[in-house]
Amino acid sequence: MKAQKNPSVTRAPNKSAPGSKSAYFKPAAMLNPRGLRSRERLKEAAREVLNEKGYHSLRVQDITERAAAANGLFYRYFHDLREIVAEICSDFFDQLIEASGTLDVGDEPYNWIYQNHRDVVDRFAQNPGVLAVLFGLAGDYEEFDVIWKRNAHKWNLQVAGFLQASAGFERSHAERMGFVLGAMIEGVIYQALIRHTDDLFEFGSEPKDIAETSAVMWYRAIFLTNPPINLLGVTGKHLAGETTAKKDT
Amino acid sequence: MKAQKNPSVTRAPNKSAPGSKSAYFKPAAMLNPRGLRSRERLKEAAREVLNEKGYHSLRVQDITERAAAANGLFYRYFHDLREIVAEICSDFFDQLIEASGTLDVGDEPYNWIYQNHRDVVDRFAQNPGVLAVLFGLAGDYEEFDVIWKRNAHKWNLQVAGFLQASAGFERSHAERMGFVLGAMIEGVIYQALIRHTDDLFEFGSEPKDIAETSAVMWYRAIFLTNPPINLLGVTGKHLAGETTAKKDT
Repeated sequence: MKAQKNPSVTRAPNKSAPGSKSAYFKPAAMLNPRGLRSRERLKEAAREVLNEKGYHSLRVQDITERAAAANGLFYRYFHDLREIVAEICSDFFDQLIEASGTLDVGDEPYNWIYQNHRDVVDRFAQNPGVLAVLFGLAGDYEEFDVIWKRNAHKWNLQVAGFLQASAGFERSHAERMGFVLGAMIEGVIYQALIRHTDDLFEFGSEPKDIAETSAVMWYRAIFLTNPPINLLGVTGKHLAGETTAKKDT
Repeated sequence: MKAQKNPSVTRAPNKSAPGSKSAYFKPAAMLNPRGLRSRERLKEAAREVLNEKGYHSLRVQDITERAAAANGLFYRYFHDLREIVAEICSDFFDQLIEASGTLDVGDEPYNWIYQNHRDVVDRFAQNPGVLAVLFGLAGDYEEFDVIWKRNAHKWNLQVAGFLQASAGFERSHAERMGFVLGAMIEGVIYQALIRHTDDLFEFGSEPKDIAETSAVMWYRAIFLTNPPINLLGVTGKHLAGETTAKKDT
């Protein structure tokens, strides 16, 4: 077989990708279906190990062992660990954004907000290694930050579309608020899933509670009223001020 | 002078604090006024260097040079760099929380929210090294995370007090919302001052713009109406939907 170089990779190879291996490398676009399946299996294995051990402890050998593949096979498909992790993070967002873009929750705007939050929180809660990488806790901050920003932008624009349709906001107003709402849920995710802040968990620490907490605040800030109370659980009702004597409406 | 050991320090000394120096150490409570001034001067120098170079590049020699002190003097007052940085972070929060607790902005709740946000954003913007440490970008995450949580909790309780007084919320409702509002501004600060997210800066990237962005969203989520429009700049007016045809009130 012919030696290949991926022309899009201009970064100097690091110690995970010794130069002696690069002649063996084959870019994804050149792979046959069997090669693509093998490559995907390595990515799935790497995602599992990343979420179990974290980026700092991630080793090529762990990945190939998990995938039941020969150790050297890794370098046939990826230059180094950063490349496979970056691709895992991009795939993670592709799936998240596709799910967010195809939510089918009927006419009640609160359901859209809650389901969207729930899906995001669920996905991050199930992928702590990906989350830590995207928040710079694993080093290599700038590289993964670019992936976060590009995808957060897409997600925020979907929110802006929702605000236009459901709240009747003008496009620029909807985008502006979508960006700020995106920053706000980033803070909630950071506190809930990275800091594990007790304060936030007073009424529950499950993804449904975290999603409801953020969703109720979004709804109030967007629509300037509480969401329909019958749609809320204990967490949301308390935040909406509906479990105590109502001085606050 | 007598050799001292700080009994509260149980952590094994790291390479920044060689054991040979520890007999020389003198805890703050044992210092005379001149010693305390000298110790404070080192902390101020360390804060400057931390904000200029970041935690990873912080060296004892940089600190003593900046303070025009003998290199060995550092170990008279501090065990290691982590100790001085932890103290800098705690001092940073003490000042921030004192400022927040003594705001005098009259009867308009929006002014309290805005001035509080403005002060927080200003302080973090002026202390990027402290900010990075508190968000775990410098490693040693858990140690500094404890400092963040303890102080964020205090700040959130001040917000809860404001919500009781200004919005008439019950105590538990006020605390609950204070904690969530705290998480939300953490997200805005993270995007504005760490990620430098362009989306957020469309109407300005100065601390006043960041503070106004977050303050308007808080106000809407708390009071379920827009803040008085005459108090808002361009950023806030746009977020409140007051610069375009108003479909959205």
